[in-house]
Amino acid sequence: MTGTLYVIGTGPGNPDQMTPEARHAVERAREFFGYFPYLDRLSLRSDQIKVASDNREELDRASAALKRASEGIDVAVVSGGDPGVFAMAAAVCEAIDRGPEEWKAVELVILPGVTAMLSVAARIGAPLGHDFCALSLSDNLKPWDLIERRLQLAAQAGFVMAFYNPISKARPWQLGKAFDVLRAELPGSVPVVFGRAAGRPDERMQVVPLADADPAMADMATCIIVGSDQTRIIKREGKPDLVYTPRFHDGGKA
Amino acid sequence: MTGTLYVIGTGPGNPDQMTPEARHAVERAREFFGYFPYLDRLSLRSDQIKVASDNREELDRASAALKRASEGIDVAVVSGGDPGVFAMAAAVCEAIDRGPEEWKAVELVILPGVTAMLSVAARIGAPLGHDFCALSLSDNLKPWDLIERRLQLAAQAGFVMAFYNPISKARPWQLGKAFDVLRAELPGSVPVVFGRAAGRPDERMQVVPLADADPAMADMATCIIVGSDQTRIIKREGKPDLVYTPRFHDGGKA
Repeated sequence: MTGTLYVIGTGPGNPDQMTPEARHAVERAREFFGYFPYLDRLSLRSDQIKVASDNREELDRASAALKRASEGIDVAVVSGGDPGVFAMAAAVCEAIDRGPEEWKAVELVILPGVTAMLSVAARIGAPLGHDFCALSLSDNLKPWDLIERRLQLAAQAGFVMAFYNPISKARPWQLGKAFDVLRAELPGSVPVVFGRAAGRPDERMQVVPLADADPAMADMATCIIVGSDQTRIIKREGKPDLVYTPRFHDGGKA
Repeated sequence: MTGTLYVIGTGPGNPDQMTPEARHAVERAREFFGYFPYLDRLSLRSDQIKVASDNREELDRASAALKRASEGIDVAVVSGGDPGVFAMAAAVCEAIDRGPEEWKAVELVILPGVTAMLSVAARIGAPLGHDFCALSLSDNLKPWDLIERRLQLAAQAGFVMAFYNPISKARPWQLGKAFDVLRAELPGSVPVVFGRAAGRPDERMQVVPLADADPAMADMATCIIVGSDQTRIIKREGKPDLVYTPRFHDGGKA
């Protein structure tokens, strides 16, 4: 009899945005595997154990959790946001795919959460109200050429874009290059939203036209949303601007 | 002094997947505007009023809620899933953009939720573990030609795709045509996930290769996820297959 391996997301960081379902899983698990800032968000009992690791060690972390679950322990693998979006659910599946046969027998329960782009979008209006895509800008896991090609095709498709992992110390130039690629495809007036820590006390939201988008406006914890040529800004007196993408596109029947 | 207009999502339908933040907003609002099946998910007090409407009346519904909020009433506009993804947040912004000036003064609070593609992904593995896009297949709000073009570009970009509003009585042929467009771009072996009512008692999940994808497998309440040529299937004895897209793409540094 194996233990259960829960893969959970804490949501964007505000505890009120974590689902009750994920919270119940936290109560049931005995050992918690995750990147330490995400584990620090959890209030655990004294009989519960945190096994913190650095980011970029996802596969080792997933394997360690699968090993313990296959030994009969109920464990949780913890991501921020939603575990299925550029996070631990894929790493756990990869570890099962490559690992010993008995890991396939582990009881696996993946619980969805509120991913960063949804919380940033909610704070600023409705930029994801029409077709959109989500890209990780990290070229650790895929070649930079492919990222550029995807940015071009996404712009040509008219997708609003959400960028995860936009910048880091080890990847300082990629975000600026991404903006350059997009400036060749889209009007300079397209709104770009820099959303950091949405819904948390240290929240910072900034909206600039693509022409003025500057990588210095982002850090590792920023989720960036780049509008399409349909995305609009509503000015409100005494309130922050609203950014939204209409559901309707010219040529529809309605 | 205006009332507050909360725009909330109930999540995929399982009450345990609705955030505490959204639940608190439900306690505070006095009048609730939404498509009736979503309103039916809420347990309201006797002093709270439901104003149910049909789907496809989003703009009228948003306007009615804004009018009441501008009169000083705290109201909630209710979507399923996340209100920012093919749902009411964009309709409320559109109504503010087009409506009388005083609607811009309404206190607007949009609260994110778990959108359908995330709950379907969690039940099947991690198909959204790499870059992906989300498209509404409804050609009520945009021309069908644009949808076909987006499908082609998304396939060429290597995006996994999530389809919302895949089919309805008024739109019977579009989903089959979408699969035909994708079969011309992608290998027939690409996994297609039909996820209905994920996380609810009547959940139905089905995985077929793109070559065999059939519109009859979907209804209005289905969210469809089409993999990329990188998406993999893990067979498990006595358990459902896992479908996931690896974080790593050939050519990355890691």
